Amino acid sequence: MSDRISVTVWNEYRTEQENDFVHTSYSDGIHTLLAEKLRTRDFDVQTAVLDEPEHGLTDELLDRTDVLVWWGHDAHDEVRNEIVTKVRESVLDGMGIIVLHSGQGSKIFESLLGTSGDVCWRHADETERIWVIDQNHPITDGIDEYIELEEAATYGEPFDIPSPDDLVFVSWFEGGDIFRSGCCYYRRNGRIFYFRPGDERYPIYENEQILDVLENSVRWAATGASGTSEFGHRRDPPNQ
Amino acid sequence: MSDRISVTVWNEYRTEQENDFVHTSYSDGIHTLLAEKLRTRDFDVQTAVLDEPEHGLTDELLDRTDVLVWWGHDAHDEVRNEIVTKVRESVLDGMGIIVLHSGQGSKIFESLLGTSGDVCWRHADETERIWVIDQNHPITDGIDEYIELEEAATYGEPFDIPSPDDLVFVSWFEGGDIFRSGCCYYRRNGRIFYFRPGDERYPIYENEQILDVLENSVRWAATGASGTSEFGHRRDPPNQ
Amino acid sequence: MSDRISVTVWNEYRTEQENDFVHTSYSDGIHTLLAEKLRTRDFDVQTAVLDEPEHGLTDELLDRTDVLVWWGHDAHDEVRNEIVTKVRESVLDGMGIIVLHSGQGSKIFESLLGTSGDVCWRHADETERIWVIDQNHPITDGIDEYIELEEAATYGEPFDIPSPDDLVFVSWFEGGDIFRSGCCYYRRNGRIFYFRPGDERYPIYENEQILDVLENSVRWAATGASGTSEFGHRRDPPNQ
Amino acid sequence: MSDRISVTVWNEYRTEQENDFVHTSYSDGIHTLLAEKLRTRDFDVQTAVLDEPEHGLTDELLDRTDVLVWWGHDAHDEVRNEIVTKVRESVLDGMGIIVLHSGQGSKIFESLLGTSGDVCWRHADETERIWVIDQNHPITDGIDEYIELEEAATYGEPFDIPSPDDLVFVSWFEGGDIFRSGCCYYRRNGRIFYFRPGDERYPIYENEQILDVLENSVRWAATGASGTSEFGHRRDPPNQ
Repeated sequence: MSDRISVTVWNEYRTEQENDFVHTSYSDGIHTLLAEKLRTRDFDVQTAVLDEPEHGLTDELLDRTDVLVWWGHDAHDEVRNEIVTKVRESVLDGMGIIVLHSGQGSKIFESLLGTSGDVCWRHADETERIWVIDQNHPITDGIDEYIELEEAATYGEPFDIPSPDDLVFVSWFEGGDIFRSGCCYYRRNGRIFYFRPGDERYPIYENEQILDVLENSVRWAATGASGTSEFGHRRDPPNQ
Repeated sequence: MSDRISVTVWNEYRTEQENDFVHTSYSDGIHTLLAEKLRTRDFDVQTAVLDEPEHGLTDELLDRTDVLVWWGHDAHDEVRNEIVTKVRESVLDGMGIIVLHSGQGSKIFESLLGTSGDVCWRHADETERIWVIDQNHPITDGIDEYIELEEAATYGEPFDIPSPDDLVFVSWFEGGDIFRSGCCYYRRNGRIFYFRPGDERYPIYENEQILDVLENSVRWAATGASGTSEFGHRRDPPNQ
Repeated sequence: MSDRISVTVWNEYRTEQENDFVHTSYSDGIHTLLAEKLRTRDFDVQTAVLDEPEHGLTDELLDRTDVLVWWGHDAHDEVRNEIVTKVRESVLDGMGIIVLHSGQGSKIFESLLGTSGDVCWRHADETERIWVIDQNHPITDGIDEYIELEEAATYGEPFDIPSPDDLVFVSWFEGGDIFRSGCCYYRRNGRIFYFRPGDERYPIYENEQILDVLENSVRWAATGASGTSEFGHRRDPPNQ
Repeated sequence: MSDRISVTVWNEYRTEQENDFVHTSYSDGIHTLLAEKLRTRDFDVQTAVLDEPEHGLTDELLDRTDVLVWWGHDAHDEVRNEIVTKVRESVLDGMGIIVLHSGQGSKIFESLLGTSGDVCWRHADETERIWVIDQNHPITDGIDEYIELEEAATYGEPFDIPSPDDLVFVSWFEGGDIFRSGCCYYRRNGRIFYFRPGDERYPIYENEQILDVLENSVRWAATGASGTSEFGHRRDPPNQ
């Protein structure tokens, strides 16, 4: 019986099989690398992918998942609405969720925030510098002033999100863009962290500082409320 | 050609036709009274109801609506998803929306916030005192420290909403409950105000102070951003 | 060598010596009872009072304090400005601070928030019900929907504070008032929690639920950032 | 009798008299140029400088000022504490304040926020791009996606401020820095806007887009609450 946090890494797992430009780090799928890396951080990790039945997200798996890590890019529309609804309910009931990179366009992110998550973007192999904006946040514990990635896909504002409950990182890009790249939201019992770094072309999930942030964010997201709220009709005033 | 703010009052319009307990103020429908009252505040006001085609919310009407006032209670589920999607897109594009009372359970509110909007409630004819929490907000301009309603339906916490971008009012109820009764949210270009007072049993929308708040909130919600954001691929860095 | 959190309970310690109405629980000073209670929660606790040299807040004590608990009421003006400055610097450098009840009027609270902290108040032995507003916050972990105090001093809005970074509790009072009674703020590396319950007349700090909140808030406030930020002139761009 | 907003531009007015590097636009003082420019935006504008009696900030002037624009740089320490206290009280009572550029280090800014306002900085004639983060805010009305300044003094994170109530702009700098360059705060009745662009070396206050932001921010800051809050003892419950 383990006290370790149970993490499920979900991956669309299409782009790695279809495109030559994908970095060799991800030859077995981004989920495989992420799972391996997170295991070294003392988490229990399982994976699930789009093309499995129920997209791999069975009730049983969601029930024992403390934190879900979400990677999707080209096939957001293929995620079935009833699975999105189920995942969203799990988040509201206290499962944490880490939405990575292009997951800003996923149905689950949109359904939790109310906005589209649209961004501006381009591929220009630009240097990215991810600045810590909130040093008093568990997710930035032990992180330097900034993390530098030599080459990255560029995301820029406007970014169609509600004002984050906690704005943790803002990225600088060589070509002139900035981007709110680390954003926390709270929804009922659930904790949501959007973290921009990624893209299939660069071995960003091999970067130990990025993995430090992922570890911190998993630990933070795992501590959502565990209780069950009771809503609805109350016949009597509570003081009677 | 008018410079006046164009307001559409939407009503489910079921409870008034089906229940004897509805206050006589609303004998022609809550929308009819609200429209009449808002016209005296110098707005252009039209109405729409659930049982009209497209629930009365045609593209043409949404296009010329600056602020939509939403009343629903018993038939939230009958609002068709494609209409909800259309209204949500209008809000993201800059239309304001005022969600009243039991509208906390509507699909449109849930789709903009990401949470269920669930509350605790009871009917006990309790006195409600609606306290101003943010006196430095346009919605409380000219409002006293609190507004007192002699009898009201009770709503209580927990209230399943994201932490409001602006928390404007908190209600006190005689029986021991408090409730975040005035909450602002910003979603892309749109402005959302949830305002609790209402219920079909009491003539609350005859109360001039409540109408002052409604007037203020309509003026506030009408000033969402008007521009169109362009998202998506940018081939070149913006500085080239 | 202890890993336990080091808590300093600071007390003005005047009202207990000067007034007959003070509850017998506090006959040795509120700080004495609070220290005793917090020790049962596995903290290292020391105390300091106004009439000691430097108000007991020596550099040495502040250096080894993780979280300072502040109680003051009648003699806020007697706290010397240089001590306030020193405490404030300690908070900005990462010491947590819990400001209790009438401490809303203290110089240290005002200097960290920028507003007066003024409240409305009266003594009427009213029942207080402290509602959890944010169940997804470490400070409410394990706390029921509300905590009820049979008799309490009344505080009411307006409460002259900035909108809290996290609004955790709102109190209901029998006589018609509500009050934002649990408020978190972040200032550089420091974490600040204001918690309303108290008053010398009632044995509120004997209440185990109130002590649960205090324990949670001490643990939360102890986790402010530990690093030192470097501000000022940088000759070179960081990427050169 | 004018309905126009009354603006007071306050300037330290030292650097322009002491340094050769100051841009010729400011040869009569930054306050003189700013006053001239703001007058073209239909405001009533007066000026005050450090070396006048009471630093020019008489009770009479503060009483009729709707919005105070604050410029200081090298002589923050020479602003007397009693004047800072008086200005702060005016802000809490509803006077708006726009703190420009190096005013982040002023006593008035620190006293309203509770943090030092410290930044990282250098002079390297870098291009600055000021990105709109909140397009749904009155201060960005009519402003493009970003404002570009060909050469500017560089400010970088960390920036020692509380998380802004509204984060409106974030700047990108050529050399690798980002900075939260447009930040709103609310303190009781007062509205505070910090706006980074400035520096004596560059004719930034000749830039019409920067002046558009200043105009918007003055109009926004002028609409703080006008009422007087009453705090303190209330003998009777408000409902008796």
